[in-house]
Amino acid sequence: MSGRPLDVLEASLNETVTVELKDGTAAVGILSGYDQHMNVVLDAPGEVEESEALGDLTVDSVEDTTIIRGDNVVSITV
Amino acid sequence: MSGRPLDVLEASLNETVTVELKDGTAAVGILSGYDQHMNVVLDAPGEVEESEALGDLTVDSVEDTTIIRGDNVVSITV
Amino acid sequence: MSGRPLDVLEASLNETVTVELKDGTAAVGILSGYDQHMNVVLDAPGEVEESEALGDLTVDSVEDTTIIRGDNVVSITV
Amino acid sequence: MSGRPLDVLEASLNETVTVELKDGTAAVGILSGYDQHMNVVLDAPGEVEESEALGDLTVDSVEDTTIIRGDNVVSITV
Amino acid sequence: MSGRPLDVLEASLNETVTVELKDGTAAVGILSGYDQHMNVVLDAPGEVEESEALGDLTVDSVEDTTIIRGDNVVSITV
Amino acid sequence: MSGRPLDVLEASLNETVTVELKDGTAAVGILSGYDQHMNVVLDAPGEVEESEALGDLTVDSVEDTTIIRGDNVVSITV
Amino acid sequence: MSGRPLDVLEASLNETVTVELKDGTAAVGILSGYDQHMNVVLDAPGEVEESEALGDLTVDSVEDTTIIRGDNVVSITV
Repeated sequence: MSGRPLDVLEASLNETVTVELKDGTAAVGILSGYDQHMNVVLDAPGEVEESEALGDLTVDSVEDTTIIRGDNVVSITV
Repeated sequence: MSGRPLDVLEASLNETVTVELKDGTAAVGILSGYDQHMNVVLDAPGEVEESEALGDLTVDSVEDTTIIRGDNVVSITV
Repeated sequence: MSGRPLDVLEASLNETVTVELKDGTAAVGILSGYDQHMNVVLDAPGEVEESEALGDLTVDSVEDTTIIRGDNVVSITV
Repeated sequence: MSGRPLDVLEASLNETVTVELKDGTAAVGILSGYDQHMNVVLDAPGEVEESEALGDLTVDSVEDTTIIRGDNVVSITV
Repeated sequence: MSGRPLDVLEASLNETVTVELKDGTAAVGILSGYDQHMNVVLDAPGEVEESEALGDLTVDSVEDTTIIRGDNVVSITV
Repeated sequence: MSGRPLDVLEASLNETVTVELKDGTAAVGILSGYDQHMNVVLDAPGEVEESEALGDLTVDSVEDTTIIRGDNVVSITV
Repeated sequence: MSGRPLDVLEASLNETVTVELKDGTAAVGILSGYDQHMNVVLDAPGEVEESEALGDLTVDSVEDTTIIRGDNVVSITV
């Protein structure tokens, strides 16, 4: 799963990813799309997971298809 | 409703979407337009919905056609 | 009045619009020009309206022709 | 004095303008130049005006030729 | 290991690097990819190292493959 | 000394200028170079001037050749 | 050592420079590379110098080769 950042996103399509945002929140969902700005589309996981902690972050699953604008993204863990 | 971010917006035209902004507010409306910067145009829903909570956010329906400049957008839920 | 964001601005020329800014203020005026960066030109309305509230915002009419640089704009309500 | 934002600046050359900045200050001077980024050049007015208030802002005349970088500009009133 | 910034990243592929972020955190991992925006991909080190201090920063190893968006990066130590 | 912003910088080469920065500081030096991003190079004045006040700002002369990145610049007074 | 900003960086390769960052810190090292975004590469000086004060800043030598992303840079003193 090595490679350039967008290659890693391509390889992670339809998998669950965690997106950490600049506002201190994080969202987990199934990566269903992305573009070159690192705008991403997350779909709700089939089974809503409970909130879980990621270090100091509380991570919530998205409940509906959500587009996250890339300039808010700190990191994407795949 | 998977695909690249702008494809998701295209597929959501004339549907109700929720736009979360960097200032901590959120707006709901009917998506009537967008462009490649993720600038979006929201029209008022036919029936003004009451404010509802989205997690910690208060979400208000737009009352008139509103252009939101893309660089304020955190996420768009469709 | 649907369409892409700049189409909506084009259709709103010579009409009164409300521009909400990132500094928490808002200005109302007659839209007399714009460009692709969403820089806008507001002219004073013929009749100076009193300040009115827009949610938590105080909205003042511009008193002279004012260019607002686009990167300050949160939204434009038409 | 309607038109696109840069047309308004062109029409305002050699006239007194007020530039409001993101740091909450404002400067008044004679517009002697500008470019497409809305960088502007202000010359000192022939007669130094006293500070005057613009809403909550204190507006001071520039005392020497001053280049203001466009990304600091909130608005330019002509 | 001198050269232009992206040459240094190229020479550091598959080596352990420390990425300092604008939010005051830092992450250590094996550099498995990067692009011209300084977006980087870090893989978990084979052996999870304990948190260690880097000046005032606490540096944690990434536990899964992580894409860090370049505009959050302050520095990368190789 | 009127003209477009970069023309004013060109005309000010080898002259003493004052650069006001977004962090609330200001620097004075001899303008020895610039580019289209308004990155500037200041050389130390031949004679180190004492700190002087510019409104609320304390202005210090640079002591060595200093490159200031343009996106920190609020204004350049020539 | 006059000239355009990138010419000054070119002339300063393999020399000790001080980089002041937006987070209020500064780093000193040997400039071993740069690019057009003012991303820079600093190598550790042969002899680690003690921290020294630069005005209000504490300046530390880098201990390993460090890439600093240009958008964090306030100034580079050569």
